[in-house]
Amino acid sequence: MAALDYHAEERSKAEFDVEEMKIVWAGSRHDYEINDRVARLVASDPVFRKDNRTMLTRKDLFKDTLRKAAHAWKRIIELRLSEDEAYKLRFYVDQPAFTDLHWGMFIPAIKGQGTEEQQEKWLPMAYKMQIIGCYAQTELGHGSNVQGLETTATFDPQTDEFVIHSPTLTSSKWWPGGLGKVSTHAVVYARLITDGKDHGVHGFIVQLRSLDDHSPLPGITVGDIGMKFGSGAYNSMDNGVLRFDHVRIPRNQMLMRDSQVTREGKYMHSDVPTQLVYGTMVNVRQKIVSNASGALSRAVCIATRYSAVRRQFGSQNGGPETQVIDYRTQQSRLFPLLASAYAFRFVGEWLTWLYADVTQRLQANDFSTLSEAHACTAGLKSITTSETLDGIEECRKLCGGHGYLSSSGLPELFAVYAPNCTYEGDNIVLLLQVARFLMKTFSQLGSGKKPVGTTAYMGRAEHLMQCCCEVERAEDWLKPSVILEAFEARAARMSVSCATNLSKFSNPEEGFAELSADLVEAAVAHCQLIVVSKFVEKLQQDIPGKGVKRQLEILCNVYALYLLHKHLGDFVTTGCITPKQGALANEQLRLLYSQVRPNAIALVDAFNYTDHYLGSDLGCYDGNVYQKLYEGAWKDPLNDTDVPDGYHEYIRPILKQHIRTARL
Amino acid sequence: MAALDYHAEERSKAEFDVEEMKIVWAGSRHDYEINDRVARLVASDPVFRKDNRTMLTRKDLFKDTLRKAAHAWKRIIELRLSEDEAYKLRFYVDQPAFTDLHWGMFIPAIKGQGTEEQQEKWLPMAYKMQIIGCYAQTELGHGSNVQGLETTATFDPQTDEFVIHSPTLTSSKWWPGGLGKVSTHAVVYARLITDGKDHGVHGFIVQLRSLDDHSPLPGITVGDIGMKFGSGAYNSMDNGVLRFDHVRIPRNQMLMRDSQVTREGKYMHSDVPTQLVYGTMVNVRQKIVSNASGALSRAVCIATRYSAVRRQFGSQNGGPETQVIDYRTQQSRLFPLLASAYAFRFVGEWLTWLYADVTQRLQANDFSTLSEAHACTAGLKSITTSETLDGIEECRKLCGGHGYLSSSGLPELFAVYAPNCTYEGDNIVLLLQVARFLMKTFSQLGSGKKPVGTTAYMGRAEHLMQCCCEVERAEDWLKPSVILEAFEARAARMSVSCATNLSKFSNPEEGFAELSADLVEAAVAHCQLIVVSKFVEKLQQDIPGKGVKRQLEILCNVYALYLLHKHLGDFVTTGCITPKQGALANEQLRLLYSQVRPNAIALVDAFNYTDHYLGSDLGCYDGNVYQKLYEGAWKDPLNDTDVPDGYHEYIRPILKQHIRTARL
Repeated sequence: MAALDYHAEERSKAEFDVEEMKIVWAGSRHDYEINDRVARLVASDPVFRKDNRTMLTRKDLFKDTLRKAAHAWKRIIELRLSEDEAYKLRFYVDQPAFTDLHWGMFIPAIKGQGTEEQQEKWLPMAYKMQIIGCYAQTELGHGSNVQGLETTATFDPQTDEFVIHSPTLTSSKWWPGGLGKVSTHAVVYARLITDGKDHGVHGFIVQLRSLDDHSPLPGITVGDIGMKFGSGAYNSMDNGVLRFDHVRIPRNQMLMRDSQVTREGKYMHSDVPTQLVYGTMVNVRQKIVSNASGALSRAVCIATRYSAVRRQFGSQNGGPETQVIDYRTQQSRLFPLLASAYAFRFVGEWLTWLYADVTQRLQANDFSTLSEAHACTAGLKSITTSETLDGIEECRKLCGGHGYLSSSGLPELFAVYAPNCTYEGDNIVLLLQVARFLMKTFSQLGSGKKPVGTTAYMGRAEHLMQCCCEVERAEDWLKPSVILEAFEARAARMSVSCATNLSKFSNPEEGFAELSADLVEAAVAHCQLIVVSKFVEKLQQDIPGKGVKRQLEILCNVYALYLLHKHLGDFVTTGCITPKQGALANEQLRLLYSQVRPNAIALVDAFNYTDHYLGSDLGCYDGNVYQKLYEGAWKDPLNDTDVPDGYHEYIRPILKQHIRTARL
Repeated sequence: MAALDYHAEERSKAEFDVEEMKIVWAGSRHDYEINDRVARLVASDPVFRKDNRTMLTRKDLFKDTLRKAAHAWKRIIELRLSEDEAYKLRFYVDQPAFTDLHWGMFIPAIKGQGTEEQQEKWLPMAYKMQIIGCYAQTELGHGSNVQGLETTATFDPQTDEFVIHSPTLTSSKWWPGGLGKVSTHAVVYARLITDGKDHGVHGFIVQLRSLDDHSPLPGITVGDIGMKFGSGAYNSMDNGVLRFDHVRIPRNQMLMRDSQVTREGKYMHSDVPTQLVYGTMVNVRQKIVSNASGALSRAVCIATRYSAVRRQFGSQNGGPETQVIDYRTQQSRLFPLLASAYAFRFVGEWLTWLYADVTQRLQANDFSTLSEAHACTAGLKSITTSETLDGIEECRKLCGGHGYLSSSGLPELFAVYAPNCTYEGDNIVLLLQVARFLMKTFSQLGSGKKPVGTTAYMGRAEHLMQCCCEVERAEDWLKPSVILEAFEARAARMSVSCATNLSKFSNPEEGFAELSADLVEAAVAHCQLIVVSKFVEKLQQDIPGKGVKRQLEILCNVYALYLLHKHLGDFVTTGCITPKQGALANEQLRLLYSQVRPNAIALVDAFNYTDHYLGSDLGCYDGNVYQKLYEGAWKDPLNDTDVPDGYHEYIRPILKQHIRTARL
């Protein structure tokens, strides 16, 4: 007997080969196969069940997380998984845990900032998890401004030690994941002070807890910072608070690859270029961009499938009502997000290449592309995470009332994704960095310095300032060259307009501060251009599979024209396009939505998410939505009894008019 | 000794009388005094504490809610509070509960749809809470399309009863608040069937639970639908699921004011105009608009106060860093929301008047303004709730990382507010209704029907289609007449453009569906015009108090010019303003932000929220943010012990390399 599939008819409409698209989405057949295997492994393991997650108390949720982390580690060892496979296993377990920070931040910090000797000492222990570490940078009073951190590490030449101390309330470490309850060690960022002189912020390896009984070491006050957004979400993580009361560590626990303190207390800065730190940031942020497409595609998958099941209004002659996915208002909100998920996927793929390229160049002492790569990664981290978070919430709204249920999966997805807009650089602060880079690039145009990479278009600024969009009919908007030029012209003109306005200020810093809101808009325009152009470039590659390329062309156009419509004011006020051309773009967009419609379900199937990973009654593969919602409801603890706890104390006295005398 | 006040200096900067502004905000001195008294009453009562709310299990949270509801009822009786005061007491308790539905939906349904006889029978019991009721309309399969509900009420002339039945899975009642665990009765909406004929959806009073022991009556399956967004939020409410298996009720429990079924089973529709139902919707929705300003102002109060405490970057010569409220990027996101809170307040105030006016007219059988009032309330419900929800999230982001903590108050505020965008009309569905009304109004212009109320400007469509904005310098944008004409012209031109495009379709319904995304945008433009114009009208009233009016003028301009910048594409592509004028508006906006800045703290103090009601460490009145965050963290249950539960089972085996053999 065939399995139930409410989406069978929708799936049969697809005009492309879904299996081929799965490989395009995953990046390669190899990646597709690993993802598929690991996702199924996790989905089939009862320890990794997560359907009851939002009903647990904080303590039970945390214990459940410890259990999953230990079990994951056991499976990783038993199955001899590679580092990449182990990462993916943790990814599909889909529950933030201290291991994310141990592997993602603690180990990379030692690798990146430790000397060879330090790496040899600490890494083997860390790889075996004989010690568990976190990354203690952010403080109660300082996040974005790392240089403002207040924790001190004062060198004591008498004992050859550093004294780590929290001099103020605001210097308390605050937020580091894995710190609160689990980590035995931390890389702690503190102001290095030798001989009374402040040398700025450096990293130190500090043991926090006894390896015998896990109790905090003397001088260490450590704990969890409390509940965060959502009922499950990041509450599985022990984001922590940490204070030091003159805690002493050996001198050789300062991470000394770039700077050293000698036995005598002399501070030395090695000749390693400081730009290297940008390489690390490029790496972390390119991963965040890849994860953005992951999170957005998950929300889009749920909303798309549910929109095909849900019917409302439009019944004719007693027939079924209209699927909500057939409404233009639904399409005009949902399909751009579907297109964005694909767009972010490809720009993330390109960033992976960019990081590899930058790394290679750095090894050859070529710093020529570093600042451009840094700006572009910062900007893409900002716009993809902001659009993803907004997109998840939009998907929730697209699911109507039922999207508000935890069983839709969307509230938790929103809550767990939200920190992406803040950590590793607040999204607005990052855009200001991009804007600063753009202004600098522009100011150097005159001096003959040729802009590289994603800023190459600025070399054609003169042309872009005066070019005219050649759209006469709606279908002209399908030409990649037309789209690219419009986005380039918009970005260039917004930057030029900012530069012109900046030049009116005698104090450039004052001007930058005053015009910062405009500068942020110019940075967004620049970053959106990058995403569009990388999507166009992707289409120029050899893409196999029946109809796959055609679908991606449609999605690319949807993405670009949706942005154009959303930011129509930018395009029209800068004279890049006329109002009439804007209207034609909108007309074309509607035609594109009609082309997406029959392929919508298949396009989200291509993400290849298991029902376990999706964690959504609304987004389940077979579309048996109402049955799942109904059956799921009864599992809530409130339904353990017909008459709720509290009835006798608080409901009955009201009904029986005993409330005046009741002692409540 | 003076109390600690980190905001003292900020407060001293205010250029207006805060006490006077408090009265303007509250609407009258009378309202201010009631609010103030009731809010303090709630804040000082230990039963109403809510600082631990996000840490409770669902069951404990629910029991806590029952306790608060019973205690509130006790206080209401003891203090002999009026209906209005009792409503406010529940409001300041700030925890969704079954009482909201009992008073807000069950009683009004009986009042609005019951005959005099029915009201005499049921209302006294309901007022005394001898019965507790809810409003069971929405089903698993139907929300927006009420006419598609599937529950049946079949008349049995043999016994003079209705048989209430749930014929399908999707006909299960789903969502009604208070239904799951508490309500003894419900107004159930079901398809009335007499003699095999379906007469559409009608309301019936159905008893659900025994008044003796609270157990569900025979044939009734009832329970809670499970966890929703957030950790506290609406999880205090027992939104319910309900199924009927041929449940019999006496004929006189059909609400028969508008329609009747006779003893013989004859269906009769009385001559009460069907439009009356619009009056009820106007009432419910005008309350939602008032609550929007409440929720948004709360978020803005938190973000504003924290932005004045938080400092980051910009330290000069070792001095303090810059308050983040001084950054233009912060101001350009925060101050428009502050202005929106005031704008929504005043449009809500006006809607209260509108509802009173409509009610009066209806009593005099004057239906002339009803459809306009209905459209305008629907549209304002839509845009104010959407902007409020987005605004709360923006405020959370404006608080950086710390906004993600439950102790900031913002995650819970977002989660608890979210349903406003869906219930009482999905916001997009409502905008389509507005658009339909606009198209109808336009089509009738030719026939000489004069548009009334908020559509009066359409009577000047001819002028608005060709008028030129007379802004030459930035300060021209401060003129109310200039702003109003720009918003009127934009709204009119967008509607005309839609009407023109619609006329190209041979089938108008098809055209409406095809162009629905554009129509939604036109509806938004119309609704924003209403908010702006009501703000302008407010300023024309006599506003006492030193400097108060001046502040409101600034906020009105901020609100209007912010919208103009946000929707610049609309204004420019329709030719209402030139790109140059758009740039001047943006320039003026920056100047306005500088004028808001010194008054920002006082402008949020004017909301007069207690720390209890705000429920935010970041937004506390005295600004002692870091101390409160730090002390609050230790209250998390995870901090009960230094070594977390689960250490021995799941952490130690990893550290000690026992994981291979461990049984996890």
